[in-house]
Amino acid sequence: MEGQHPIKPGSKEFAHLFPTGTSSDTEETVPTGSPSSTRPPIDYVIVFKFPTKGKEREKLQSEAQNQFDILITKLNRVGLSYQVQTDRRTQGTLLVLVTCPIFVLSEELKRERIRDFLLGIRASEFDNDEDEKKDIFISNVHELTEAERLRIVYEMLTETEAEGGANISPEVDPYVDSIFPLHNDQFNKEWIRTWSKKSLINDQDLNKIRNQFGEKIAFYFAFLQNYLIWLAAPSSIGFFITLFGLKSLSIWYSITMLIWSVVFIEMWKRREQTLALQWDVRHCSKHEKQRLEFKGDRMIRDEVTGEEVPYCPAWKIFARRAMSFPGVAVGALFLSVIVGCVFVLQLFLHEYYTGPFRQVLHYAPTIGYVLLIPTMSGIYSSWVKLLNNWEMHKTESSWEYHYTQKIFIANFLVAYLSLFFIGWVYIPFGDHVLPYLTELNISHSHTKVDFNRLRGQLIYFIVTGQVIGFATEMLLPYAMNLLLPKVKKMAHKKKKSKGKNSESSSSSSSEEEVTQEENKNGIECRLDPKLLKKIYRQVDLPEYNIYTDYVEMVIQFGYVSMFSTVWPLTAFCCMINNWIELRGDAVKICKYTRRPIPYRAEGVGPWIGNMETLVWLSSITMASFAYLFHPSTNIHSPYTPIFTILAILLSEHLYLFIRSVIRSSLNALPSWSDIMIRKSELRMKKVWLQRLVGGDATTTSGQIKKRALDAANSDSPSITVYDTSQIIRNAFKKE
Amino acid sequence: MEGQHPIKPGSKEFAHLFPTGTSSDTEETVPTGSPSSTRPPIDYVIVFKFPTKGKEREKLQSEAQNQFDILITKLNRVGLSYQVQTDRRTQGTLLVLVTCPIFVLSEELKRERIRDFLLGIRASEFDNDEDEKKDIFISNVHELTEAERLRIVYEMLTETEAEGGANISPEVDPYVDSIFPLHNDQFNKEWIRTWSKKSLINDQDLNKIRNQFGEKIAFYFAFLQNYLIWLAAPSSIGFFITLFGLKSLSIWYSITMLIWSVVFIEMWKRREQTLALQWDVRHCSKHEKQRLEFKGDRMIRDEVTGEEVPYCPAWKIFARRAMSFPGVAVGALFLSVIVGCVFVLQLFLHEYYTGPFRQVLHYAPTIGYVLLIPTMSGIYSSWVKLLNNWEMHKTESSWEYHYTQKIFIANFLVAYLSLFFIGWVYIPFGDHVLPYLTELNISHSHTKVDFNRLRGQLIYFIVTGQVIGFATEMLLPYAMNLLLPKVKKMAHKKKKSKGKNSESSSSSSSEEEVTQEENKNGIECRLDPKLLKKIYRQVDLPEYNIYTDYVEMVIQFGYVSMFSTVWPLTAFCCMINNWIELRGDAVKICKYTRRPIPYRAEGVGPWIGNMETLVWLSSITMASFAYLFHPSTNIHSPYTPIFTILAILLSEHLYLFIRSVIRSSLNALPSWSDIMIRKSELRMKKVWLQRLVGGDATTTSGQIKKRALDAANSDSPSITVYDTSQIIRNAFKKE
Repeated sequence: MEGQHPIKPGSKEFAHLFPTGTSSDTEETVPTGSPSSTRPPIDYVIVFKFPTKGKEREKLQSEAQNQFDILITKLNRVGLSYQVQTDRRTQGTLLVLVTCPIFVLSEELKRERIRDFLLGIRASEFDNDEDEKKDIFISNVHELTEAERLRIVYEMLTETEAEGGANISPEVDPYVDSIFPLHNDQFNKEWIRTWSKKSLINDQDLNKIRNQFGEKIAFYFAFLQNYLIWLAAPSSIGFFITLFGLKSLSIWYSITMLIWSVVFIEMWKRREQTLALQWDVRHCSKHEKQRLEFKGDRMIRDEVTGEEVPYCPAWKIFARRAMSFPGVAVGALFLSVIVGCVFVLQLFLHEYYTGPFRQVLHYAPTIGYVLLIPTMSGIYSSWVKLLNNWEMHKTESSWEYHYTQKIFIANFLVAYLSLFFIGWVYIPFGDHVLPYLTELNISHSHTKVDFNRLRGQLIYFIVTGQVIGFATEMLLPYAMNLLLPKVKKMAHKKKKSKGKNSESSSSSSSEEEVTQEENKNGIECRLDPKLLKKIYRQVDLPEYNIYTDYVEMVIQFGYVSMFSTVWPLTAFCCMINNWIELRGDAVKICKYTRRPIPYRAEGVGPWIGNMETLVWLSSITMASFAYLFHPSTNIHSPYTPIFTILAILLSEHLYLFIRSVIRSSLNALPSWSDIMIRKSELRMKKVWLQRLVGGDATTTSGQIKKRALDAANSDSPSITVYDTSQIIRNAFKKE
Repeated sequence: MEGQHPIKPGSKEFAHLFPTGTSSDTEETVPTGSPSSTRPPIDYVIVFKFPTKGKEREKLQSEAQNQFDILITKLNRVGLSYQVQTDRRTQGTLLVLVTCPIFVLSEELKRERIRDFLLGIRASEFDNDEDEKKDIFISNVHELTEAERLRIVYEMLTETEAEGGANISPEVDPYVDSIFPLHNDQFNKEWIRTWSKKSLINDQDLNKIRNQFGEKIAFYFAFLQNYLIWLAAPSSIGFFITLFGLKSLSIWYSITMLIWSVVFIEMWKRREQTLALQWDVRHCSKHEKQRLEFKGDRMIRDEVTGEEVPYCPAWKIFARRAMSFPGVAVGALFLSVIVGCVFVLQLFLHEYYTGPFRQVLHYAPTIGYVLLIPTMSGIYSSWVKLLNNWEMHKTESSWEYHYTQKIFIANFLVAYLSLFFIGWVYIPFGDHVLPYLTELNISHSHTKVDFNRLRGQLIYFIVTGQVIGFATEMLLPYAMNLLLPKVKKMAHKKKKSKGKNSESSSSSSSEEEVTQEENKNGIECRLDPKLLKKIYRQVDLPEYNIYTDYVEMVIQFGYVSMFSTVWPLTAFCCMINNWIELRGDAVKICKYTRRPIPYRAEGVGPWIGNMETLVWLSSITMASFAYLFHPSTNIHSPYTPIFTILAILLSEHLYLFIRSVIRSSLNALPSWSDIMIRKSELRMKKVWLQRLVGGDATTTSGQIKKRALDAANSDSPSITVYDTSQIIRNAFKKE
């Protein structure tokens, strides 16, 4: 694949990661023969945190000692080298800087490639006829991309012992706080620089992201870019409608949006396939990482691979899944009530309330949206995480899928519940509330509920919501980054002056002193202060959470597909937002989060299913709105609900029809990736055949369908002609 | 696979097909070295029909001569040998008895196996470690099943020249009337004998059918047997309900039926996969046979295989498909009108008519169903065949798929239209007709339209329909078989006596004479009169049409899933019918049709989609009936249509929910075939790896996931412990 320039570990790009001081006894495990230029960089930082304050200090110390020994033993076992650095800013924190020696990595890569081949992930590599042996198994470590290298080391660190890994993870080791790789500042700077200048992100750029951060992150950016471009269509239609003052709620606009949504999803599926093929990650989800937490009832031999795997009867898992349904329902209900309360408050304050502090109270609901709802969503998340763990998922991907779905429910409720409420309950039945308000002696300035209320709420979500989202995502961490160090410094100064006054003479008075003092123990390394500072800074950052970014986009897609009939400029606003979002996310990853672990991925995963659900719902919302808010509809007639339901029934069938037509049309057109896959399969099989039957098969397989036209043709046909003519003549004679 | 006893061409089972007389010059193409015991049987009979009567006899004769020469040349080219036999019963008919010599078949089989491997059909054969070369390419002709042998020869006969075939087919050669293989009477007798004694057909029996008639026919029987067993559940429920006089229209019964239908279809999909794997036909639909009729705009090189293929731009094909829609719609409308008329007539005569000839006219509609509707369906069929040809399908499978769908529409209308009409129009609105009848002075004895009218019609279809179906399928051909020869003999006698009186002395006076006379020409063979009689009999039989058998079953499935709430004994009646049908179809294939060409198939193909559509519809019918005919429902209330629609809306969503739950549950349980496929893939890849990297890979691939635990472990860990303790101690000291 062109456009894929792997960064060589020995080259300058890695220089930033090299420990410049003399290293410890871990150097022993590095082969002495390796040239100094290829000295491996720091691959991962393991944050080891243990309690130092408590009643029984002796016990705590021996426990910490014990756990640390386990960690070190695990690292030794898989052949990873490491340096230990005490975090001088916080008590009881050690930073274990893990490095994978080249020869270990090379061995590991070889195994990984074989496994990938067995799973059908990297079939493309095996089909070049000449010198295959060399190509495949000389696992050239120097040609690895950073992402690949880090992924392999991560697998070594985290896989279970049965799979041959070190089995280190916060879930298993109580004092292991986190594991993360270090940022490549050079790359990050370059990334932000180029993207801030470009208007469109191309495949080349995505490839770079893939090589640096892995396919999972690259797929997110690919999706975002693709979605951004696709938004151009509804944006321009919406713009046109607004410009000429046309009706946006018309049936034709709804149907156009429905078709657009379906085509967008189907085309993205194709794009996903193409990228997966280009990035050599097709079928990579087949390599399902076993969940460390899954223990099962007993161990059994896997029928296919013959390995020992934990086993749990299917009925037990089914039962647990079935039982977790009500749990999720309760959580969703709880969240719905919260969202409903905030919304009713907002409605009341905006529409009815005329009492004192009207101006100030106007902003109360927004504060609710910004503070209360995220907190409640957090509670819901922890609750469903608990449920999800209880469901006993065998693989990480299954766990992730089900967790994503549960989280999506929360986001769905927060984003759309109030809009559904306005459209389907408040506008049709809202006027019935007024008498009660009067009865309760609440003064209100309300006149008439109409369609504009829905539009207002949508605009509020699209514009205010996205501005708030941007602020919390970008500006808040920026401000924190600016302020926090100052605050810390001040706190540190205070502490220092306090410490000086106290009796502890052995405690460190300044960072430099500590460094000198600690050099006595052989295991601790002397790191370049610059590098150390960098590591400290990254330890403090939060982990990057790709869910939230996907959720944001998918929820936004829902606004466009479900509600853009209400306000045709929705798509346009979203497009602008996404242009900024694309760059903002790049900055976020580079500056405000730790470097993500470069997982592989075949696509955007469960989000595509969620988007399909949203499109389905959009057939319901658009049909009902198109009927309910049509000028000729008397919304208060008793027949309205009935006709609305009829409209929904029709629209849903229309949606299913459109989808099946589009799918079957697209299936009839083979995509680039289909052709490439078929090509590589055929080539691979031909190579195989050649090996099986020797040289002569090449011609056979090359012309498999041509039958020899020789012998039969060389026969002189004259004899046959004579004979047949005899027969035919007979037939005519007989008459 | 056990239970698969291939019939050896040299063995006794084939004896019935061996020409006993001396053969013609075609013997030249048979290698003299081949032992006489392996002399190949007659594989196919090509019926060559040409006109002998007309104005320009000279011209006709030369044209027939010409066409016959072309046919012979084609046969020679692919290396097939043949014997020509004049059909002495009809003027201008030649029977070309085609035989594939062993060495040609062997070459062909080799090519076929390579192609199958390239398409991934028979991967299972390539993965046994020892002596692969021998296993694969010694294409052991003597171990071929009859079905395989016939399929290969058929492909030689019919494939285009580009694909290396002889390109013989009724579509290309104007005088080629048909091509068919001969029955194996021994097998057929045995088949009917065993099945008539058995109550259940097992895998062994299906395997035998597969080996004799090919996978396509075998899948039909497998489906029928599977369906028969599955019917046991609704049958017993229905029986129970009838016995205890429970309400059949209850919601619970409807939901049970919905779940049953969904589970049945999903389980059949699994069974299909398993059978496809056992029968080595997985992915065989990938080998798409090019349609001879597809010419395209120009020839292009296929991107994958590099072969020359006809090409037509996609938009052109899309346009044609889109335009054929209205054509089908017109056809369907025409048929609907016919069905509607017959139905209204039936309704009128049964329910309202009290005039003269009442008793006789009662049977008029049944006559309509038996005579008029099949004729009209025939017209519709020819019309959609025309449309389907116009749609320019590239492959036979695509053509077949679309044709099946169109045919299914006709059958759907004939089978269900009147039931829909009764349930949704006649019962709710039927009473409004009465005043008009009175106005028109038509005396009627009608009192009240109710639910029993629907039940009556359903019982009519289930019982009368199936009896009529059985009669036309089985008894009619039986009667014809008995009577026709007598009629013919009489006709022949008359002719003979006439012929004697006429002046033609050269004409044959008796069959024996002709045989003697014609032995003069070298090309004609002297066949055993018994064999000749057998061939004559089979030439007269119609071709076996698997569509009609599938249609019958799928339509019946529709009655069970859509309407069994109306009459719970539906499933029971169908079960009895199918038990007979299973055996009846065996008899039909053996006695009343030509031997079918043993096509391969991966499953029942488009019918599964049709059944899914029927289940969807069943969610609509059952919900509406459950509401409409509920005792508490006032069917004449103006609100009834509205609530019916609401019930349908709910029920459809319930159906989709049930389906998704069942599907995802089943997906979570890997089937036997999934495991087998994964196993064989893994084994295949391991073999490959072994060949690529040599011996040492065996251990690598065997233990790919286990990392070496040696070096790191042998290091004495004591040094590390010392160092770590130092660090931990420091952490606690510093406080």
